[in-house]
Amino acid sequence: MSKENQTIKAGVLGGSGYVGAEILRYLAVHPRVEIAWITANSRVGEEVADLLPNFHGVIDQRFLSLDDAFARLDEIDVAFAALPHNKAQEVLPDLASRREDLRVIDMTRDFRVADAELFESYYGSPHGAPEWLSRFVYGFTEFEREKVAASRYVANPGCFATSLILALAPLARAGKLQGELQATGVTGSSGSGNVPSATTHHPERAVNFRSYKPLVHQHLLEVNAYVQSLGSSSYHLNFVPQSGPFVRGIFTTVFTQGMEAHELEAVYRQAYDGEALIRVRSGSPDLRTVQGSGRSEIGIAAHGSRGVVFVAIDNLGKGAAGQAVQNLNCMFGYEPAEGLRAPGGFV
Amino acid sequence: MSKENQTIKAGVLGGSGYVGAEILRYLAVHPRVEIAWITANSRVGEEVADLLPNFHGVIDQRFLSLDDAFARLDEIDVAFAALPHNKAQEVLPDLASRREDLRVIDMTRDFRVADAELFESYYGSPHGAPEWLSRFVYGFTEFEREKVAASRYVANPGCFATSLILALAPLARAGKLQGELQATGVTGSSGSGNVPSATTHHPERAVNFRSYKPLVHQHLLEVNAYVQSLGSSSYHLNFVPQSGPFVRGIFTTVFTQGMEAHELEAVYRQAYDGEALIRVRSGSPDLRTVQGSGRSEIGIAAHGSRGVVFVAIDNLGKGAAGQAVQNLNCMFGYEPAEGLRAPGGFV
Amino acid sequence: MSKENQTIKAGVLGGSGYVGAEILRYLAVHPRVEIAWITANSRVGEEVADLLPNFHGVIDQRFLSLDDAFARLDEIDVAFAALPHNKAQEVLPDLASRREDLRVIDMTRDFRVADAELFESYYGSPHGAPEWLSRFVYGFTEFEREKVAASRYVANPGCFATSLILALAPLARAGKLQGELQATGVTGSSGSGNVPSATTHHPERAVNFRSYKPLVHQHLLEVNAYVQSLGSSSYHLNFVPQSGPFVRGIFTTVFTQGMEAHELEAVYRQAYDGEALIRVRSGSPDLRTVQGSGRSEIGIAAHGSRGVVFVAIDNLGKGAAGQAVQNLNCMFGYEPAEGLRAPGGFV
Amino acid sequence: MSKENQTIKAGVLGGSGYVGAEILRYLAVHPRVEIAWITANSRVGEEVADLLPNFHGVIDQRFLSLDDAFARLDEIDVAFAALPHNKAQEVLPDLASRREDLRVIDMTRDFRVADAELFESYYGSPHGAPEWLSRFVYGFTEFEREKVAASRYVANPGCFATSLILALAPLARAGKLQGELQATGVTGSSGSGNVPSATTHHPERAVNFRSYKPLVHQHLLEVNAYVQSLGSSSYHLNFVPQSGPFVRGIFTTVFTQGMEAHELEAVYRQAYDGEALIRVRSGSPDLRTVQGSGRSEIGIAAHGSRGVVFVAIDNLGKGAAGQAVQNLNCMFGYEPAEGLRAPGGFV
Repeated sequence: MSKENQTIKAGVLGGSGYVGAEILRYLAVHPRVEIAWITANSRVGEEVADLLPNFHGVIDQRFLSLDDAFARLDEIDVAFAALPHNKAQEVLPDLASRREDLRVIDMTRDFRVADAELFESYYGSPHGAPEWLSRFVYGFTEFEREKVAASRYVANPGCFATSLILALAPLARAGKLQGELQATGVTGSSGSGNVPSATTHHPERAVNFRSYKPLVHQHLLEVNAYVQSLGSSSYHLNFVPQSGPFVRGIFTTVFTQGMEAHELEAVYRQAYDGEALIRVRSGSPDLRTVQGSGRSEIGIAAHGSRGVVFVAIDNLGKGAAGQAVQNLNCMFGYEPAEGLRAPGGFV
Repeated sequence: MSKENQTIKAGVLGGSGYVGAEILRYLAVHPRVEIAWITANSRVGEEVADLLPNFHGVIDQRFLSLDDAFARLDEIDVAFAALPHNKAQEVLPDLASRREDLRVIDMTRDFRVADAELFESYYGSPHGAPEWLSRFVYGFTEFEREKVAASRYVANPGCFATSLILALAPLARAGKLQGELQATGVTGSSGSGNVPSATTHHPERAVNFRSYKPLVHQHLLEVNAYVQSLGSSSYHLNFVPQSGPFVRGIFTTVFTQGMEAHELEAVYRQAYDGEALIRVRSGSPDLRTVQGSGRSEIGIAAHGSRGVVFVAIDNLGKGAAGQAVQNLNCMFGYEPAEGLRAPGGFV
Repeated sequence: MSKENQTIKAGVLGGSGYVGAEILRYLAVHPRVEIAWITANSRVGEEVADLLPNFHGVIDQRFLSLDDAFARLDEIDVAFAALPHNKAQEVLPDLASRREDLRVIDMTRDFRVADAELFESYYGSPHGAPEWLSRFVYGFTEFEREKVAASRYVANPGCFATSLILALAPLARAGKLQGELQATGVTGSSGSGNVPSATTHHPERAVNFRSYKPLVHQHLLEVNAYVQSLGSSSYHLNFVPQSGPFVRGIFTTVFTQGMEAHELEAVYRQAYDGEALIRVRSGSPDLRTVQGSGRSEIGIAAHGSRGVVFVAIDNLGKGAAGQAVQNLNCMFGYEPAEGLRAPGGFV
Repeated sequence: MSKENQTIKAGVLGGSGYVGAEILRYLAVHPRVEIAWITANSRVGEEVADLLPNFHGVIDQRFLSLDDAFARLDEIDVAFAALPHNKAQEVLPDLASRREDLRVIDMTRDFRVADAELFESYYGSPHGAPEWLSRFVYGFTEFEREKVAASRYVANPGCFATSLILALAPLARAGKLQGELQATGVTGSSGSGNVPSATTHHPERAVNFRSYKPLVHQHLLEVNAYVQSLGSSSYHLNFVPQSGPFVRGIFTTVFTQGMEAHELEAVYRQAYDGEALIRVRSGSPDLRTVQGSGRSEIGIAAHGSRGVVFVAIDNLGKGAAGQAVQNLNCMFGYEPAEGLRAPGGFV
């Protein structure tokens, strides 16, 4: 029996939030995965399809507690973590210690950088399991397939970080990343999660546009750590996150210097050609064409040697759950796009 | 000196919420009104234009506490109340008792029905000042100008109630309101106020449509009380409130029986002709054309004797602050549309 | 070899419009269907994934002309028609005549009513193939599985019609449909197709709400024809279509008389229990939970014997392509939800 | 009688488009302006308030033809042109020649740069009245009050250009504009005008985000021409226009180098302090707070010597009609914010 026909069982830690709900969307149709259980500490005992009616007729389970899940660890081959900030630090080492052969794909920010001091300096509190940091591989799938396949623990990149790395990593690998770079990234409101707040209050978000944390956004932590690991260190990224009046997606714009359009295009085609989930194109992508899917669109334009690179992803797709499924496929030897073939919307 | 050239001073109780901010929008350009002070208990000392930058260059004041306001009661001729639910019951009688000649326009639900028991049965708690209920006139301006002009205290109608009464009151007055009526009313998210909640969480509201409290909405209380006061009692209104993915406005649809299009149109033209702020038209209005203003659009269609009446208002405009300004104009003898002439948007 | 494991080939006539693009979304992941070819007369020769990038990595074909398709009729087992109005009348009889064993699922309005005179009276031009009208079965799947399975030609219901029939057909079957009924149906902008027009111009639609063709909408034609075929004729439906500022979905509200909540619920549970794609619930559904899918949500509320039934569907899903796939499954003996299991969005 | 109490009469050429409708919104409440007539060649004879119901009760006029307007030139003191591209070249010289004392404020792109060859190279067709180019003053009001006051002809800046110049002009004047600058500008759909097209088709715009004409946008023509006129020529602006899913407003982000936050802030405070319609602030503005008004918000942030400047305007307000009214006030000696005091929305 070949690996590709094998079916595995997955547990989802934190299935009631947006990232959790999105990983369920993909796993529910993944031909090689069965969902063994789903936790949601604030919804224990509720039908998944009552909270998330899009799963009516698809997922016939109730949310478990974390304790329930720990009692059923032996049922699963892989655990996906979509827990609140800092909670994964506490839960995952414990869980991994009980089942050494278990694979873990963490979609929180907790294990994305190896340096515990950096983590603390960005997030303001000491890391709860610093000795585990080095056991996690940073799962930017397209560039890290070998490491991911060889690892038991994957730290899935953040949404803004993914969109930036999709633009920067090919430049780094090509030795073209240097000097000052400027970037904006416009995110939809689902990036803020499912807890209502002032910045996601519909009357104030629906027709608004604003920036936040300009030049100091915390996602730069993992972006710089990862990009530098590719060998680039003589660049400085000036990044301005912005929030737009839409729900799904991140549209990132990176200004470049020193390459003409055909050179830029060559860099990205070399990096991503053959990738089923990435399309490299001339000109700007439309964000709507990646919404609801794990796909990425990369657009290129230049005027002489001044260039611009656009990246469009769904923050919940490639920016979270979609990439987690890519990493799953990689860890278990499945086809790269398995479970991610359902096309997203065109409108 | 004629009354029309007189200038008065107004105080606004609760200026940081959406209804409060909207009354400020109108008062700021009202040629006969000066804003004496503005309270906001959670924002005491803050610049109004810091919280509400649309007033930069227009309102150069800081929010006061309620105590501050009480100490400066002698500066004003009229108080507008945009307080939280049940707070007006507590504050307004006290305030009115200290300044007997003061005019009060209450934009909360607290004094809209004269029957304290009905109030309690709908809202679940006993009314805090039942003896004051009969002192307030229900301010559906177009039909109650004489009473409003003669009164010191006006209870400004609610937003859903206003849209329903705009449709029902002319039928009642024409003796045509009877039997079963069906109505839907679709509201924008600003009707929920400025406190974030699940139903106004942008990711879940932005592309959604739903109903709530079908057939049992609390606004029927004041609608039925008022419409029955016009002499109609043999009708039953089946009302379904709905929430739409827009910010401003209510679009109400009322099904009628027994009148052809020309008869319906005659009823509404008779009721509203000459009103500067109401347009009666054949066919459906566009909600966008009343947003940001105190105007109302009433549309009429029929197929034989089966009819439908559409009402489009801005929930914060005619549905709250706009009607409050109409009532102010009425109480002080100003032109009906004074302060309400700035056209709303077309897009 | 059992029928369920059989794989068939489908051709799509008109794959560049919204209904065509949506049928492609479902067929692309349907485990028993291979897409043989796709036509789009205005896009002949273009890559499907260039116009519709959501199919990048999924559909690697170019749009054909209608002539190309006719030349390749022998490659397919079933044709889906998503052609412009009145075009199916011209194309489908010709196509069906050339391949007598071919199955045809028409998603246009052309073959939905058997009465050519009625068609002409509603649409203003004579039907181009009246002798074919009676050969088509009206494909309201849940109620017509036997007929659909036995037929070669299915007329797929329209989007508004589907939402109304989902509410009315169970009442008709239960003998409870009589007297005056009032209904509103709020549609998203994708219902207008992909040709820009004033009513779908973003600046004028984005924050708007309006009604159109009140009480005289053309979809009543097929609704009444179908519902009457279930044995009900003593009712009158007063229907007001409305347009909302969202892209996908129809939310329909139907007022009823004479049944309490438990009676209403019993009617709908009896009609739809066991259906994988329909959820019957108490209270209002959220439109967002059906967007992007073939699912329907039916909500019920009543106050005494006055009731209201809500129907939420995606106009392109259950209202068009989703139901077409249900009909395909029915015609070829597949599982009812085959190809429709990918969950839609929750945000 | 002082100039400030004088009342003038204005004619509006092209009042049915969005810029025309917006200038009407401001003129209708301007205490020193009477609207003499309004043209709209495609709507001759129609009631203004039928097309634009927000003017019901405010503007009681019918649209005239251009010929009608020419016949009534002696009624007006100033003409505002909101004509289609290239039409102003044809109409305005003729009109100005017939009434030499007439003031003209052109809101089209036709007279914004003095160099006819540059115009042709950007727009692809020769300028129709090159000898008139030098007679127009570029009306960036805050910096050009003296010239505007002394001129009969004003070329009102474009919307993107205004947002960029608001950021760049103070840097230029302070001698701080040099080297490479990167900027994005996100515009709402009303910037595309009232003619439906693919990029403003609601189903495809409502949840989308994209860039267009990256690095080569035509508005750079007037931006560079104007900014260089302030003495800066050693900078290069890399500008990427983007379109967002909202209706009103432009949010522009400009990256700077070499100044810390307090230095940046000093530059903008020096440029704009005392301006009633501009607020300079630390951090990002919210676009919603300028919508519907002629106000501008300028936000500043920096991390060390890397800075970013945000500009929020309404494309129809400060980006078109609002600035036109500022220029009117300047030409006729009125208060700078006259007619522009009605606060925009907060939601």
